[in-house]
Amino acid sequence: MKRRNYLLFLSMIAMFVTRVAAEDGSRLWLRQTAGDSIVHISIPRQSPTLNIAAEELRKDWKGVPVELHIDKKQEKTKSAEGFCIRSGKDKIIITSRSEIGLLYGSYHLLRLQATHTLPSSESAQPIYEVPAFKLRILNHWDNLDGTVERGYAGQSLWKWDELPDKLSPRYTEYARANASIGINGTVLNNVNASPQILSEEYLQKIKTLADIFRPYGIRVFLSINFATPIVLGGLPTADPLDKDVIHWWKQKIKQIYHLIPDFGGFLVKANSEGQPGPCDYGRTHAQGANMLADALKPYKGIVMWRAFVYSPTDADRAKQAYLEFQPLNGQFHSNVIVQIKNGPVDFQPREPYSPLFGAMPQTQQMVEFQITQEYLGFSNHIAFLAPMWKEFYNFVSPTTLKAVAGVSNIGTDTNWCGHHFAQANWYAFGRLAWNPHLSSEKIADEWLKQTLYINVENTKDEVHTSLKQLMLESREAIVNYMMPLGLHHLFAWGHHYGPQPWCNIAGTRPDWMPSYYHKADEQGIGFNRSSTGSNAVMQYPDSLRQLYNNIYTCPEEYLLWFHHVPWTHTLSSGFTLWEELCKHYDHGVQQVREFQKIWNSAQNYIDSTRFVEIQSKLKIQMRDAIWWKDACLLYFQQFSKKSFPYSIEQPIHELNELQKAILPISNFECPDSKLLNAIR
Amino acid sequence: MKRRNYLLFLSMIAMFVTRVAAEDGSRLWLRQTAGDSIVHISIPRQSPTLNIAAEELRKDWKGVPVELHIDKKQEKTKSAEGFCIRSGKDKIIITSRSEIGLLYGSYHLLRLQATHTLPSSESAQPIYEVPAFKLRILNHWDNLDGTVERGYAGQSLWKWDELPDKLSPRYTEYARANASIGINGTVLNNVNASPQILSEEYLQKIKTLADIFRPYGIRVFLSINFATPIVLGGLPTADPLDKDVIHWWKQKIKQIYHLIPDFGGFLVKANSEGQPGPCDYGRTHAQGANMLADALKPYKGIVMWRAFVYSPTDADRAKQAYLEFQPLNGQFHSNVIVQIKNGPVDFQPREPYSPLFGAMPQTQQMVEFQITQEYLGFSNHIAFLAPMWKEFYNFVSPTTLKAVAGVSNIGTDTNWCGHHFAQANWYAFGRLAWNPHLSSEKIADEWLKQTLYINVENTKDEVHTSLKQLMLESREAIVNYMMPLGLHHLFAWGHHYGPQPWCNIAGTRPDWMPSYYHKADEQGIGFNRSSTGSNAVMQYPDSLRQLYNNIYTCPEEYLLWFHHVPWTHTLSSGFTLWEELCKHYDHGVQQVREFQKIWNSAQNYIDSTRFVEIQSKLKIQMRDAIWWKDACLLYFQQFSKKSFPYSIEQPIHELNELQKAILPISNFECPDSKLLNAIR
Repeated sequence: MKRRNYLLFLSMIAMFVTRVAAEDGSRLWLRQTAGDSIVHISIPRQSPTLNIAAEELRKDWKGVPVELHIDKKQEKTKSAEGFCIRSGKDKIIITSRSEIGLLYGSYHLLRLQATHTLPSSESAQPIYEVPAFKLRILNHWDNLDGTVERGYAGQSLWKWDELPDKLSPRYTEYARANASIGINGTVLNNVNASPQILSEEYLQKIKTLADIFRPYGIRVFLSINFATPIVLGGLPTADPLDKDVIHWWKQKIKQIYHLIPDFGGFLVKANSEGQPGPCDYGRTHAQGANMLADALKPYKGIVMWRAFVYSPTDADRAKQAYLEFQPLNGQFHSNVIVQIKNGPVDFQPREPYSPLFGAMPQTQQMVEFQITQEYLGFSNHIAFLAPMWKEFYNFVSPTTLKAVAGVSNIGTDTNWCGHHFAQANWYAFGRLAWNPHLSSEKIADEWLKQTLYINVENTKDEVHTSLKQLMLESREAIVNYMMPLGLHHLFAWGHHYGPQPWCNIAGTRPDWMPSYYHKADEQGIGFNRSSTGSNAVMQYPDSLRQLYNNIYTCPEEYLLWFHHVPWTHTLSSGFTLWEELCKHYDHGVQQVREFQKIWNSAQNYIDSTRFVEIQSKLKIQMRDAIWWKDACLLYFQQFSKKSFPYSIEQPIHELNELQKAILPISNFECPDSKLLNAIR
Repeated sequence: MKRRNYLLFLSMIAMFVTRVAAEDGSRLWLRQTAGDSIVHISIPRQSPTLNIAAEELRKDWKGVPVELHIDKKQEKTKSAEGFCIRSGKDKIIITSRSEIGLLYGSYHLLRLQATHTLPSSESAQPIYEVPAFKLRILNHWDNLDGTVERGYAGQSLWKWDELPDKLSPRYTEYARANASIGINGTVLNNVNASPQILSEEYLQKIKTLADIFRPYGIRVFLSINFATPIVLGGLPTADPLDKDVIHWWKQKIKQIYHLIPDFGGFLVKANSEGQPGPCDYGRTHAQGANMLADALKPYKGIVMWRAFVYSPTDADRAKQAYLEFQPLNGQFHSNVIVQIKNGPVDFQPREPYSPLFGAMPQTQQMVEFQITQEYLGFSNHIAFLAPMWKEFYNFVSPTTLKAVAGVSNIGTDTNWCGHHFAQANWYAFGRLAWNPHLSSEKIADEWLKQTLYINVENTKDEVHTSLKQLMLESREAIVNYMMPLGLHHLFAWGHHYGPQPWCNIAGTRPDWMPSYYHKADEQGIGFNRSSTGSNAVMQYPDSLRQLYNNIYTCPEEYLLWFHHVPWTHTLSSGFTLWEELCKHYDHGVQQVREFQKIWNSAQNYIDSTRFVEIQSKLKIQMRDAIWWKDACLLYFQQFSKKSFPYSIEQPIHELNELQKAILPISNFECPDSKLLNAIR
């Protein structure tokens, strides 16, 4: 049998094998289970972590023998988590200063194999890999009752009722998936934290999880409620300068580390959206954070203190976090990291970066991304977020950040994330946390090849190229059909799924109303944050401030974020603002139409289960895109009083019907087509 | 003031006047109410009809004085209803052999004025107009309880409870509208007739209506229930050869003519869809019709006997009417006209013509069109039907027909027809009944100019051209998105609104099921009516039979009507049947998208009330078109097992959801967007 024919034969077998295997998405990007290989794998010693590495290689590796070596002196990999892969004719050697580095190296080798990017043995230079961030953390917004705030993939993974006695197989699978992409920390519970999480009962459960995660290099963190000493400790106060409070925390932390010696530390949402915090006692955020940090320091624990605050210290919410936190520059202790959302408002489809980044040079900072698609169509829309996160890094250098956190999109759904494509965001978060210089295309390429195809080699190049294009365009398509040109927060009340630019609920905070953000009137639309308005531009460095402050130089993707622009203002295309707004919304709709075509044309290369499930999601997304376009354009047309350009698809909805409809969902669920079709 | 400026000034006034006037569609194409003119109108004598003519001219005519003359010897106008218009410098003279001819001439003159097509006085040749058909009749499918079968414009116009004492102003408006387009007969009640219509009580009411209609040249006809002698007369039988039955009918007819001396006659649906008829007594349709005809003959009344029968004398419903009626050729008396639907099945968006036409040379025939859009989207879709009716005349010469009937689309809705554009079908029916050689474009042009614009002269040519294009394409668009390439009767059970190609209701007639008509299977789709199938082609004249019988010569618009065609069969485009089917459905959808654009671009030239109402209807039509496309293509895809071409809009619906949804409407109503949005 010639080699070519032999490969064809092999791939036909592989096709058959994977075709009959259940493709329900549960195996994520780790689908290579062709049975134990006979390849020789050598590890330096027996240990839980090294045993995992060996097992993974034995299961999947199909090349020459692999040796794992601990090399304490390895230089090029400055981090202990780094590794080096050297491939020769007869064997491959992975070296690292640590066991976890060898596990990461093993997963990397398997990734190269799965994506058909193994360097040929002759020419191969050694591959050195080191993570850019020391802390690469998932934030779970999981509540103790099993719900997940902004979770669209079922219930919480953590079965608190069953722990610590009964263990879900998902705990290990979760750790394995994270390790395979280099995630090394997890905050188990919602930032809107229940004090109960620190009870002895729960700490026992958490210890059990930590034990499972440890061999995979994953440390456990917890979100804490600042008032826990009152609720759980029975103290009269949670004042961070109160001796009893300090004592209580020290004891609690001692108790935690007794159970979990490598416990990571606390994530704190304080004095934000109704959560308790040090400001309740006239203390600063720094005083609150430092008290906890000092108590954690003996154990090398850290505090991640969220800067997501927006008490109305200023009429412009976008300015408030900066106004509150920037003056605290230099006041945080060395094991505190201020955790800042990428944008100044709240995880919108597009925001300029938060100007707080770089504005506190004497304070450690980290970025919080949102992997779960709270503002991007939940688990119904395809929104590949690598391009959004990389856009952030265009403004904020990774070297200025101590860590990166991502709000998880994981739940009990069979496919983990609700939408098969949403797995790509978990994957991309991990890969970019490891190396923010990876291109979005490279990540999409990797994910597609590992996750989606029946057989990579049999998949037509043009299909693969189209699917990559779909992924790479997907976030911009959402920006287009939801909130183009710098519009933001036009979302429906509470759940943030559909459009509700008209939303007006008496007695609520003005900055929870879309009109606060779009400010549409007969003259124009947009939030004037220039020097003639709220002057939020002032918070940006000179060069950007000048660019953003001028309506003629402000990048058009941020135009309505920084300016209230007349409907008749001419944009760079030569069209007026109104026309461009219409064209952007329409372009978003057409992009999704194209996504449907691309997807349907990939049918022969995807298993039928996932093919149909994703096809159905795309139908929802298609109708949602039209819904967004119609709702926003028909609503804004009331102000612009201009007709729709002839070139765009004309509305199919009635504004008054859309305005009457309410989507009956909580903040914990993703609406299905039945619910949605009833209202749009 | 220069003439040009003066005209501009006048048109501005006109614009203002018509802008403030209520434009609710109630005035139909008769909107010229600029107040009484001072133009001199001369009539030969006072009479109800001539007084109407004079009043119409006084109200609207804005030119030189008009004289109406009775000219008994007028030659060129062979029919007494014809007229001649001669225009000179100082006056216009309308002549006719009859008063009603003068009224028709007056309306024609006003139509020329309203459409800006008055010949200039210098060059003008006399205008001669004669109707092509002597009988131009509306069939109302109105029930005595006020419902209208297949009526989508509210309730019946006839307020039986109020008659004969209280008179709706609509009775006169109805007569006027009909007279203005030359309609000269009306069958007041449903062909599924209640015997009650012939009761003394009802005849008094009918007499009242006939008195109102008479000056407008409109004669009243009635649909009768063949079993009326039993139900109303108390006889034991309705056998047409029974002496008592014959006597009963003679007495009844005498009674009718006593009240209504110009009564037109009877329309009869017998032995069809459960209605009683002569066949119940072993008599033929001819025997039944002749008995009634003989009784009507002394009064010059006629019988219109419907050939819409389809008892299963053959496995192919399309053949049944021919099989039952053709053998009766020559057996009908001289005042019987056999009324045949234009196609052999039932008012589908496209059918080949019924081969019964021309197949009974010794029997008088008339065609029955359906103005109400039972199979064309009810009063929600724009379907300008002139092109469909003219398509029929391509096969059946008007000279072979004695009369033309149209099933009315009129009801109590403010705008008469439910959809403003549906008025154009009432209008077109009348105009084509008068002159079937008028082009569809000419009729659309007339209707638009008279009915829709704020001001004809101010309306941009390109807008007018686009709207005409919209009307002229509209029926073909429906064929495309509902049933292209000869498909037929894929309609939802009972009400016939949406698609239900999968419909399968146990225990019902097979020929009421869509699968009876589409016969989709894994090989292909379509009803084999060729010589290898049901051989329905046999009923057509040689030249057509040969054309239709061959899959390669059969016109593609009838392809699936006459053939069961393999999915892979290549059509003239070079694409396969499956591809062409997809492309046709998609093209229909794109056509409606274009209609929306055209309509929205006409906004400045239409009053806002009707603009918005029609805009809303187009939104319903748009979503319905997608619904049709998705339902049919997703359903047929189960048989073809082929993917959708990349070029078409991909489905946004789930087949299983569409299959579950039921539209909760009766046969008497048009669903609104709320009902529809709940199911698609």
